[in-house]
Amino acid sequence: MVKRSFWAWGHESDEPTAEQMKSAAEELSKRYKVDLTPVTPPTPSSLSLRKPRVTPPSSLADICVSDDHDRAVHTYGRNFRDRIRAFRSDFPNPPDVVARPRNEQEVEAVLEWCSSSGYAAIPFGGGSSTVAGFEPPDGYDGIVTIDMEGLNQVLEIDDVSRSARIQGGIYGPALEDQLRPHGFTLRHYPQSFEFSTLGGWIATRSGGHYATNQTHIDDLVESVRMVTPSGLWESRRLPGSGAGPSPDRLAIGSEGILGIITEAWMRIQARPVFRASAGVTFPTFAAGAEAARRIVQTKLWPANCRLLDPVEAAAAAGMDGTKALLVLGFESAEVPQGEFIRHAVNIAREADGAIDDAVVRISDGSSREVSGGSDRGTGRQGSVGAWRNSFLNAPYMKNHQAGLGLVTETMETAITWDRWPAMDQMVRSALQDALDRVCGGGSVSCRFTHVYTDGPAPYFTFEGMGRLGAELEMYAEIKQAASDAIMAAGGTITHHHAVGRLHRPWYDQQRPELFAQALKAVKRTLDPNGVLNPGLLIDA
Amino acid sequence: MVKRSFWAWGHESDEPTAEQMKSAAEELSKRYKVDLTPVTPPTPSSLSLRKPRVTPPSSLADICVSDDHDRAVHTYGRNFRDRIRAFRSDFPNPPDVVARPRNEQEVEAVLEWCSSSGYAAIPFGGGSSTVAGFEPPDGYDGIVTIDMEGLNQVLEIDDVSRSARIQGGIYGPALEDQLRPHGFTLRHYPQSFEFSTLGGWIATRSGGHYATNQTHIDDLVESVRMVTPSGLWESRRLPGSGAGPSPDRLAIGSEGILGIITEAWMRIQARPVFRASAGVTFPTFAAGAEAARRIVQTKLWPANCRLLDPVEAAAAAGMDGTKALLVLGFESAEVPQGEFIRHAVNIAREADGAIDDAVVRISDGSSREVSGGSDRGTGRQGSVGAWRNSFLNAPYMKNHQAGLGLVTETMETAITWDRWPAMDQMVRSALQDALDRVCGGGSVSCRFTHVYTDGPAPYFTFEGMGRLGAELEMYAEIKQAASDAIMAAGGTITHHHAVGRLHRPWYDQQRPELFAQALKAVKRTLDPNGVLNPGLLIDA
Repeated sequence: MVKRSFWAWGHESDEPTAEQMKSAAEELSKRYKVDLTPVTPPTPSSLSLRKPRVTPPSSLADICVSDDHDRAVHTYGRNFRDRIRAFRSDFPNPPDVVARPRNEQEVEAVLEWCSSSGYAAIPFGGGSSTVAGFEPPDGYDGIVTIDMEGLNQVLEIDDVSRSARIQGGIYGPALEDQLRPHGFTLRHYPQSFEFSTLGGWIATRSGGHYATNQTHIDDLVESVRMVTPSGLWESRRLPGSGAGPSPDRLAIGSEGILGIITEAWMRIQARPVFRASAGVTFPTFAAGAEAARRIVQTKLWPANCRLLDPVEAAAAAGMDGTKALLVLGFESAEVPQGEFIRHAVNIAREADGAIDDAVVRISDGSSREVSGGSDRGTGRQGSVGAWRNSFLNAPYMKNHQAGLGLVTETMETAITWDRWPAMDQMVRSALQDALDRVCGGGSVSCRFTHVYTDGPAPYFTFEGMGRLGAELEMYAEIKQAASDAIMAAGGTITHHHAVGRLHRPWYDQQRPELFAQALKAVKRTLDPNGVLNPGLLIDA
Repeated sequence: MVKRSFWAWGHESDEPTAEQMKSAAEELSKRYKVDLTPVTPPTPSSLSLRKPRVTPPSSLADICVSDDHDRAVHTYGRNFRDRIRAFRSDFPNPPDVVARPRNEQEVEAVLEWCSSSGYAAIPFGGGSSTVAGFEPPDGYDGIVTIDMEGLNQVLEIDDVSRSARIQGGIYGPALEDQLRPHGFTLRHYPQSFEFSTLGGWIATRSGGHYATNQTHIDDLVESVRMVTPSGLWESRRLPGSGAGPSPDRLAIGSEGILGIITEAWMRIQARPVFRASAGVTFPTFAAGAEAARRIVQTKLWPANCRLLDPVEAAAAAGMDGTKALLVLGFESAEVPQGEFIRHAVNIAREADGAIDDAVVRISDGSSREVSGGSDRGTGRQGSVGAWRNSFLNAPYMKNHQAGLGLVTETMETAITWDRWPAMDQMVRSALQDALDRVCGGGSVSCRFTHVYTDGPAPYFTFEGMGRLGAELEMYAEIKQAASDAIMAAGGTITHHHAVGRLHRPWYDQQRPELFAQALKAVKRTLDPNGVLNPGLLIDA
């Protein structure tokens, strides 16, 4: 059986080889003009976790495990702090039990056990949280992590309404595999796609494939079925309603504090056939931003409208570091997309963008391209294709750099267009100052992952060389400076995926205080013993 | 000063003349083969309301009134039951005081007075509720209706982000008047547009102009500012976020039970320039529904995609009663819409729709049409134009029929496509059975007002001739039968605008029971004395 790595992105087979670690060390040594010694990754034998403090009741014994490897895998997500601590085999507060219910009744039984015993019950999807979304809390006598991977089926497809009833524990690839034979797709592709689940996407308000219009999983949810300690919460399947506040919108983004999402009816669609893509270059990031703003405000709704600043365009798409790149993509199952991309490209050109007509790629879905001069499928070559591969591989590449002292992270937000120029300046300067102070320098870059008529979702990346053993403190200082700047500029502390433990201090500044009070009242109603993912979003 | 009619749709000047009442009586006499006597509408002198039971504190005296006419206007909305009772001058439980705060501080002061005195505090927008959304509750010693008309300004326009900060009490026409000089529009046009407010739209999850994609006010809200008895609730302006459940989505649809919406940042847009429209006929309603489904599932996102069954097509668009009519409209400030409508028309034709190319109207916004052979502006003539006028005039026309015994109402819902054929049959047959039983016959018709990828929003109209004096009981029996059928078929009890007192019994079947518990807990937090619009959505 393929096992997940307890420290790296992916499975154990994805852990880097000695050769890969060596060349990463060489590459970083060169980049930072330091002399880095290649390291040896930890192995499961280095794990020595606190003994499990609780024993499941015999009725649940079949679905519970407490071995060190499994508990380590369920302790941390995959952000920078997680990788550092896991690489050090530093797991002071692991779950005591990992439960893997096979059906809803077993989810209920596990929750009931936790609720009556006062044990923290931590819902677990694909394990790729970057915000400490399932990291166990301190102060509990028992911690039970509930891994939903057993609820992994597309249960029903309604091809007339283009909807599907899908279990919460299904991973991205399995979900698509089960829809594909029917000609459908959910088309929700967060970067964590391989290691995240439908239930996780809903609980974290995941941002997905589409750069415009229906960007978040929120928009794809038709109804939600959620097990809570107070009973079952299930909304009616409805395409729309005006009846009271939306129950679904309270479950969406609830980060496991109100219940565990066992099923949802999701809006699916026919697989795209017609595609068009273009990579438009700009003299500056600001010029590209202006083009993105105008394109989204025309409501052409491109599937992709991602803007890379010159640093990112160089790193991800092999450009020369002097120009920004706007990656445009249109797609449809039924409608040729040529007119759409031509219109978007025209807007981009009016905003100082440059692209040859010959590299605007338009495809009707057969193996040939209608225009664009290649036979290899639209959007999978040239600057656009380079960006795609980079997007999917990025988390794996970080594995190679583990244990070398690098301090790096990505941070996403959203902001209205009027405040964006000031935010760009504030966050970049906060990051650069912090990197200079903490690491003696480093790099900052930015891209837009999604754009709305009223503002972009900027995604910042920073990197500096830290001191081995001090990375966590160095990271914390940089992260704090950038997060404070995001808040001061008027942004959200997360656009893509949840608050988690990591972003609580800034979330608390962001949400209305009365909303926090309201959410506490809701939690007391649904989870009277306060066992579900304690400390997320609100204090107990 | 122009005064609102206490019984009719509109102002006193919109009340029908004796001649209009007479011809309505003649028309109905003919239609139902009965002999109806024209009636004389009530006048303000016929009002004799319960004496006000409470006196506002002197600090609020300037903004409070208690005269009979004003209290009558603030007692009922404008659905069938309201019209009947108001026409009878039957106002047993009017508000004691109508307060008109001029700013947020005065909203707070009025709420504080109500909260500390235990008086019911009823937020009032434009007064056009069709679900008894602001009708005073029984069992209170004092009832204060808070008319928000004084907060009627567009306070700020952010033309870069295409957003505007707008006060909650502004009426539809004033809102558009204040945006127009800046080249912007909200483009939210419920049928109540003239007599409804931004705050009302948000509190009722109003369905608006767009038949597809962003249909509800929900999608246009960037942030909400709401005064509650526990303090101010204000969300951050954000184009998108993944940080916890959306605070806005809890305020949207809260029907005045959690707070009073004083301001919101709304997503606005450039005024449309390019338009295209087409009226496609179908041999059956089902064939038209299939076309609407295919069009919305292609995600061409027409602004209008409304389907009238043969009865409605005859009444509203002058057709011959044998064919259904699909009204398609596209619009954009920047992009010519010819390709879009041609594509939609092609889909409609593949689904058995008929239309001549010559009557597909395409306009570039200048006085001339690009095609379609008329110089009078797209979508304002022919079958499409007839439908438009009918839509805007419908509420006024009902004034003429008052007091003649007619029992008539509209009911809207939403349902997934797979269940729609059964719902169509169930609701029509429940309505026809009830009309036959109660009125000895009557007519039932249906249209789709909005369509989603996963289902339509059907809108039923029924009409029968009742007995004078017994209309309310007859109406209640028909309404009950239809609402039960909507629930049994799997729909929502309201798609367009709120639950109100009228729809509570069916709403209670629709929402998850645990959501009701959660909402109660939220209300206790925000409105600890339970004074805000008591009895709406949940019991105290």
